[in-house]
Order: sequence, then structure tokens, then C-alpha cells
Amino acid sequence: MSLDDIRIVLIEPAHPGNIGAVARAMKTMSLRHLVLVRPKIFPSDEADRRAMGAVDLLEEAWVVNTLEEAIGDCRLVVGCSARTRSVPHALLDPRECAEKVVLESVTDSPTAVLFGTERTGLANEDLDHCTAQVMIPANPEFSSLNLASAVQLVCYEIFMATREPPEQQERSLSDLPSPDREMEYFFEHMFRALDSRNFIDGQMREVAIMKLRRMFARVRPNDGELKMLRSMMRLIHRDGE
Amino acid sequence: MSLDDIRIVLIEPAHPGNIGAVARAMKTMSLRHLVLVRPKIFPSDEADRRAMGAVDLLEEAWVVNTLEEAIGDCRLVVGCSARTRSVPHALLDPRECAEKVVLESVTDSPTAVLFGTERTGLANEDLDHCTAQVMIPANPEFSSLNLASAVQLVCYEIFMATREPPEQQERSLSDLPSPDREMEYFFEHMFRALDSRNFIDGQMREVAIMKLRRMFARVRPNDGELKMLRSMMRLIHRDGE
Repeated sequence: MSLDDIRIVLIEPAHPGNIGAVARAMKTMSLRHLVLVRPKIFPSDEADRRAMGAVDLLEEAWVVNTLEEAIGDCRLVVGCSARTRSVPHALLDPRECAEKVVLESVTDSPTAVLFGTERTGLANEDLDHCTAQVMIPANPEFSSLNLASAVQLVCYEIFMATREPPEQQERSLSDLPSPDREMEYFFEHMFRALDSRNFIDGQMREVAIMKLRRMFARVRPNDGELKMLRSMMRLIHRDGE
Repeated sequence: MSLDDIRIVLIEPAHPGNIGAVARAMKTMSLRHLVLVRPKIFPSDEADRRAMGAVDLLEEAWVVNTLEEAIGDCRLVVGCSARTRSVPHALLDPRECAEKVVLESVTDSPTAVLFGTERTGLANEDLDHCTAQVMIPANPEFSSLNLASAVQLVCYEIFMATREPPEQQERSLSDLPSPDREMEYFFEHMFRALDSRNFIDGQMREVAIMKLRRMFARVRPNDGELKMLRSMMRLIHRDGE
């Protein structure tokens, strides 16, 4: 386990000051890898100012245009969101999230925690990429945490979890759940295959797709299992018939 | 146990924005009672702006001139500080701090967590008032948490601790440790008594005083015990002899 294998991903952060405050929050908890997806303003003096002694994290941050670039190689992707969707993810609190992240972060197998834009949080399509969802317990009448505060809490729990590492399971890379990129190929493949048979259409299509995504997110197939699933989809798919 | 009996005390906060951010952090975790000791600027638009939906906490905040006014009636006072002193306090991490605070916060017996000024943290004389010290685990190479982030972490742990309340001990008010005000009277009384006998003087006086304070902070005498201790001090004191 290395904290360097844990990415904090901010999707469309609107305020540069928050980006700096997030870098500072991360560095206090020994996390280093910040990824910015379509930041509104970056780099900026305001971000540098709020980062205090964590400007190095801003200099090393990845800036990307799509979530896929940020997490394509991640096997575990946890989205931080207070919203529950009609087809819910496995819900973790920050402590459970930290245990999972610390357990699964190994070299060549990075993990990521996603945070959405300040006003509206993670979009549905971002949450769909996630393997699990972390929800910060809060006052039901006022649950609006500042972005940097939310990152601080999640990173603090990760740092706390590294102090007493949970028992490491001996697992080879091929046993590990497949990375997000492979899962997305698979989902595309599956939906194309199912569509070719009009399996899901009309008003229920979106809900059905989401339910399938959730189910396979829970399954978390490894590479061999995914190969098998794909072979099954190939059996379903019917070209232009 | 009520979260209303837990005070967050900021000593000489320099930046009004931080006061607002602290109010927001507290309210997300259902804490309401903010006390400001000699704030540099308060009230202010900047604080209101950063508080977002937590302006009500700013409106209800106590503004006082001395720490004694803030915590005189508190039996448990925990200081948040990364510094270790030559004569150390009982050191808690935020989780242990939260358990203690939640266990001991009852009506008519408030508790307090103190946070020092942004640049330099709690002063020695503030820490001397504390029953215990909470230290946030952090990157040894960069442990500089933002004030509101530190408050957010401590309040989050308090909120988490209320979700599974530790077993409440059945204790009457007279069994409870004496409040800070009474402890300060006692310390004054003791040092005056000891000085009257030249028990502690010269270069070692300050260290001796601190060691005595720490020892009695650990003892946490209840009202009856304190009365007894005072009687003992009266036996020591010698007027002008």
C-alpha cells in the first residue's frame, strides 16, 4: 500500500481557491496525487495562495478533459456524494471508504475518490463510473460541506487507516477487479448487444442500464471473468437481423 | 448528551473568513455553540459570506475578552494543538477526543474544544487551562491544517461518536470533575500557599507549576475532593511569617 497510489479527482472545480485548499488538505494527510477534470480556472495565483505549503501538489497535478483519462486505469473508484439515486450504489461512510481504499491501493493498481463541482456535486454519469459511493454523515438540516472540508475528512480517514493497516490479502494482479476502462468497454459491449435484441428500450431503458451497471459494479469482475462475460455478450449480439 | 453542550472556542482568530468557515463546518456536524475570544474582526461580511447557511451560528456566537469567560463553567476542556510541551498533557487523537467529549457533555456541564490563533496555535497559558490535548494525526513534513479544516475534523468525529453513543455512566453532578473556574481558584490558592513557604522559586518555578497543573488536570477532582484539597492548602499557607 502506498498513499501515492490514491488519486483525489475534482470534477469541474469552479473556484480556484478551493483547488488550493484541497491541495493543502491532501498534503496534510500525506496524499499527493491530485487530478483536475476540466477545472474552470487553473493554474491561478488564488489556488497557489490557498495551497500554502502545498504548491508542489498543484505543480504536479494532472489536468485532463475527461473522467475516463483520470480514472481509466483505476480498479476502485469511489464517488463522494450526498445524493442517493434510484438505483443505489454500495454506500460507505468515510471510515469504511478509507479501509477499502487503503486495502486496494497497490502499485500498478491505483484507486480514486471523486468529488463533484461545488454547487451540484457529482453528476449521474460520474457516479455511474463509480464502484462505490462515500457519503459523509452530516446534519440532515445543513449538510453542505465545503469542498476542501470534504476532501480533508476523506483524506484524514485514509491517513488514519494507514496507521493500523487492515490485514493485506495476498492477491495477484490477475485476481484484482478489472479497471474502470475495461469495465466501460464491457458495459458498452453489453448495452450494444442487448440493444441489438431490443432487450431494453422505451422509457425503462435508462433505469435498466443503471441497474445493470450497479450489479456489475458490485460483482467487480477480474480480467478473466470479464473476458468470459464479454464472450457471453458476443453470443447475445445480433448484427442487423 | 446534547451537542448543544459542546462549545467550539476560537482564541484570537485573525481572519474573518476563517470564522465563517468554522461556523459552516460546525453546523454541518450539528454543533451550534461558537465562542470567540478576542476576535480581530467580528462581525464582518467576509465571515457571513463564508458561513453560507450557517450565519445563525455567527449571530448567536459569544464574543468574550478572556478564556475564563469562555470556559469557566466547563469541566472538560480539550485544547487542539500539534505542539508537545515539556510537561505533556494526556494526548488524544480526534476520535478519542470525541468519545470523551460526547461522554462528558451533559446539561449543566458543558465541554469545550479550544483552537488557537491561525499562525501560532494555542499559547502555553491557554493549554494550561486544558484537561487534555487533542492532536490531529498529520504528515510530519506538512502538518499545517487550515483552522476550519481542523474544526471540521474534530466536529466530524464528535458527530460520528454520537451515532453510536458510548455507554453512559450514571453520575450525579457532584461526582463530576470540577469546572475550570473552580480549578483555577484552586491552582491560585495552591501556588499562593506554596509561595508563602518558598516551596517553588527561582528558575524551576515555572516548570514546577506546570507539573502541578498537569497532575491535577489528570486527577480531575470533583467538588468535594477539591474542597478537601483547598483545606490542605490552607494548612500550608503561612501569612507574612
